[in-house]
Amino acid sequence: MITTNSKEVNANEIMIKMVLDRWFALIKNFDTVLDLLTDDQLQKEVSPTKNRGIYLLGHLTAVHDDMLPLLNFGEKLYPSLSEPFIKSPDKAIKELPSAKELRASWRKVNEVLAEKFSALKPDEWFQKHNSVSAEDFIKEPHRNRLNVIITRTTHLSYHLGQFILLK
Amino acid sequence: MITTNSKEVNANEIMIKMVLDRWFALIKNFDTVLDLLTDDQLQKEVSPTKNRGIYLLGHLTAVHDDMLPLLNFGEKLYPSLSEPFIKSPDKAIKELPSAKELRASWRKVNEVLAEKFSALKPDEWFQKHNSVSAEDFIKEPHRNRLNVIITRTTHLSYHLGQFILLK
Repeated sequence: MITTNSKEVNANEIMIKMVLDRWFALIKNFDTVLDLLTDDQLQKEVSPTKNRGIYLLGHLTAVHDDMLPLLNFGEKLYPSLSEPFIKSPDKAIKELPSAKELRASWRKVNEVLAEKFSALKPDEWFQKHNSVSAEDFIKEPHRNRLNVIITRTTHLSYHLGQFILLK
Repeated sequence: MITTNSKEVNANEIMIKMVLDRWFALIKNFDTVLDLLTDDQLQKEVSPTKNRGIYLLGHLTAVHDDMLPLLNFGEKLYPSLSEPFIKSPDKAIKELPSAKELRASWRKVNEVLAEKFSALKPDEWFQKHNSVSAEDFIKEPHRNRLNVIITRTTHLSYHLGQFILLK
């Protein structure tokens, strides 16, 4: 369905750049806020009774880690983060990784994703992701790898809007 | 640079769908939260000392209104919203439009944008937007109309993450 003539590859490259530029800009914005916050500040709620900073950091790390198998890039690096930060709401689980550990995991998973992104050829971004069957993908070709980046970028932006309230 | 052979148009249509699906999903999510909030709740801050709901509603309405000239769709509908909601921070200007007016303006501007979107042909999404010169666009073809939707979608998502804290 997606062919590889030179003009089309060029158009695809433009689209890929548009999407990845937003992803990397938001990762950078998040990192800037994270570097400004102390570990104590991360223990605070973004608004009374709402999620704490440490939970948002763990949640985003776990969701980005899930992108590795979803994009067919390999196994998750931190599978133990799913239970406390995706399956459970904040404050449901008492023992969480330290802020120091989570800061390191957050950096690492985004670094690995960036490496994997840079190794993909343009056409490979338009291949199906791992949560859609080959059969469904024929009918729904928008369910490709690049679409995962679009949805995860808006997810990151949503929580960045909350995280920045801790400043 | 972007040509119109049938396979490429198909690839472009997939990309346009990916981007517009996120835009409309987030508009819908925002509308759902907005409908749940009373006018009194809109007067509250999303977190102590931070922006009020009414300011975020006005800000998003003004930013979406700005998309009309930026995308070459015509004049802004509500130019008077720029001063209180883009040029000024929250609480700097005492007299703001009522919540009722802002709710109506928010709906209207998004409706007009949706009509304009549906009238565009696929290739027209990849034409330059109005803040880039023809000369720069040759070097930076990603500065097209569709990229405006990508950046405004993450902007909407960022503030939706804050707005939902009022619930």
